[in-house]
Amino acid sequence: MKKFVNTPEDFVPEFMAGVLAANPDLLEGNLEYQMIKRKDAPRDNKVSVIQGSGSGHEPAHVMAVGPGMLDGACQGPVFAAPPVDACYETIKALATPAGVLVLVNNYQGDRMAWDTAVEMAQGMDDIKVDQFIINDDVAVQDSLYTVGRRGVAGNFFVMKCCGAAAEEGKTLEEVKAVAERVNANVRTMGVALTSCIPPAKGTPIFDIGDDEMEVGVGIHGEPGRERAKIKSADEVTAMLFDAVATDLPFDSGDRVALMVNGLGGTPPAELYVIYNKAAQLCADRGLTVARNYVGEYCTAIEMAGCSITLLKLDAEMEAYLEAPATTACRIF
Amino acid sequence: MKKFVNTPEDFVPEFMAGVLAANPDLLEGNLEYQMIKRKDAPRDNKVSVIQGSGSGHEPAHVMAVGPGMLDGACQGPVFAAPPVDACYETIKALATPAGVLVLVNNYQGDRMAWDTAVEMAQGMDDIKVDQFIINDDVAVQDSLYTVGRRGVAGNFFVMKCCGAAAEEGKTLEEVKAVAERVNANVRTMGVALTSCIPPAKGTPIFDIGDDEMEVGVGIHGEPGRERAKIKSADEVTAMLFDAVATDLPFDSGDRVALMVNGLGGTPPAELYVIYNKAAQLCADRGLTVARNYVGEYCTAIEMAGCSITLLKLDAEMEAYLEAPATTACRIF
Repeated sequence: MKKFVNTPEDFVPEFMAGVLAANPDLLEGNLEYQMIKRKDAPRDNKVSVIQGSGSGHEPAHVMAVGPGMLDGACQGPVFAAPPVDACYETIKALATPAGVLVLVNNYQGDRMAWDTAVEMAQGMDDIKVDQFIINDDVAVQDSLYTVGRRGVAGNFFVMKCCGAAAEEGKTLEEVKAVAERVNANVRTMGVALTSCIPPAKGTPIFDIGDDEMEVGVGIHGEPGRERAKIKSADEVTAMLFDAVATDLPFDSGDRVALMVNGLGGTPPAELYVIYNKAAQLCADRGLTVARNYVGEYCTAIEMAGCSITLLKLDAEMEAYLEAPATTACRIF
Repeated sequence: MKKFVNTPEDFVPEFMAGVLAANPDLLEGNLEYQMIKRKDAPRDNKVSVIQGSGSGHEPAHVMAVGPGMLDGACQGPVFAAPPVDACYETIKALATPAGVLVLVNNYQGDRMAWDTAVEMAQGMDDIKVDQFIINDDVAVQDSLYTVGRRGVAGNFFVMKCCGAAAEEGKTLEEVKAVAERVNANVRTMGVALTSCIPPAKGTPIFDIGDDEMEVGVGIHGEPGRERAKIKSADEVTAMLFDAVATDLPFDSGDRVALMVNGLGGTPPAELYVIYNKAAQLCADRGLTVARNYVGEYCTAIEMAGCSITLLKLDAEMEAYLEAPATTACRIF
């Protein structure tokens, strides 16, 4: 297994310990529950925005904790939902009178864990807490681990805008409304060139031929729309872009944020080849790219591949994306 | 070939066009010479700091151009030095009365190209220009493409400190002295778990067994100290760290910057597993990690692997590292 791992069981707590060691002034954690939080959270007059999912998608989510982004996050094992008790303890650790908003990427395992944890926090501890489900992936309606559309890299924009809105002192209902508006206006689709190897499995999560790609792949390697022969970068970009841009649809004159997200094993230069074409396709459609993001935002361990995300902006969203944020990964 | 590429010949100009498209306010380029520069450079009263090398090491170097970092950079093809005319045109484009400092990673091809270009600029154009050679890699004394030690990820610290010093208005001689001091105090060693595929070659640049790693690898896949069986993350970290830390040597009580650099195909979580152990090893030696860097700073296309860099700090270097910088990659 071509990985930097000690034992598969220790992989998640050890990388989280690394994140904490690298950010001692910013973050603190409770590794018993694989949870990381802002040192200065919770604050009484501020809504806490939290998230949690399987590991292997870094920087999502524990590396996205910090001022202007998430107040806290918990991780499950690689590609498995966090346990209910981790979700519950994370809600409790970030509870404030202003309330807690849980952002959940739409995967059945995550939803089940958070549903239960939210009920426990409400019923047993009288904590003000609400959830919002992110489902930006246009590839397929239902999938291996999901009913409805999956939540993938568009999640970044929901976190960023909600983080900024909460920092401004918005109420729980207002922050949730921001999540709804961003999610309603964000669309993503990805493609995988290779599989990936969860440390505990030790073998690739799916097989793929040397000349094949999986179009519309999920961030756990779930099948997408089709298994196709590898095409040129421009053809792949056009395929992803068209699927995304026609879904909302985006209209000529729209201001957008454009993200090219690496899935973990694709180097920076290739992501910029994709960005170059995607920016041209935006111009062709009359879309103005007001903000752009090229890098690793939501990965599938070391999978070679990428996703394209478009967010239709309004003035409030632009201001939220512009707002300062400080996290373990410095890409926001 | 599991890559996002159109044609191998277009790969470098296309990713550079992507970098320019993503940073229209910050950067401008001359893709005939595969050169990118700050829009606001050159400035008469400021030393220009430039660099250039083969492509495939992104974000080094064209994604490291911007205020507080490089004033300009040019790229060669993947893993090949930039042509002399590209180096010459880059010097001319950034020439100022205050002078130009060229930072060269110690590879024979790069040195030959820059030596000639510097001579041309001095002789034909009377441009004030000097060079500094970076050689931070402790792995081997001579290597496949290098006489003396290679210049690798430690290059980041030289760029950052020289960029900050030049921004402060230091003279060419003073900025070069900063480069000398940083280079004298920075040490790196890397390890590869996989090979990588230059687009124009289409096949791996070296063969490596499923259970093997190359210890002390160069950033073009050059052999290092030994071909060994893969070990645990902690063992690999200790091996790299000890090689680096005993070279200067670093002493108990030193303040250091610690970088864990991904070589392109290793995901963020694994880099933090390495960081976690490296930070412990710093503590064991009485080194205080004043600043840390975990991510991709100098890659070898999609190679799975990492390097560890230690920089022994003084107050001036700390201030330079703290100084603001804005580049295409937002990791500084």
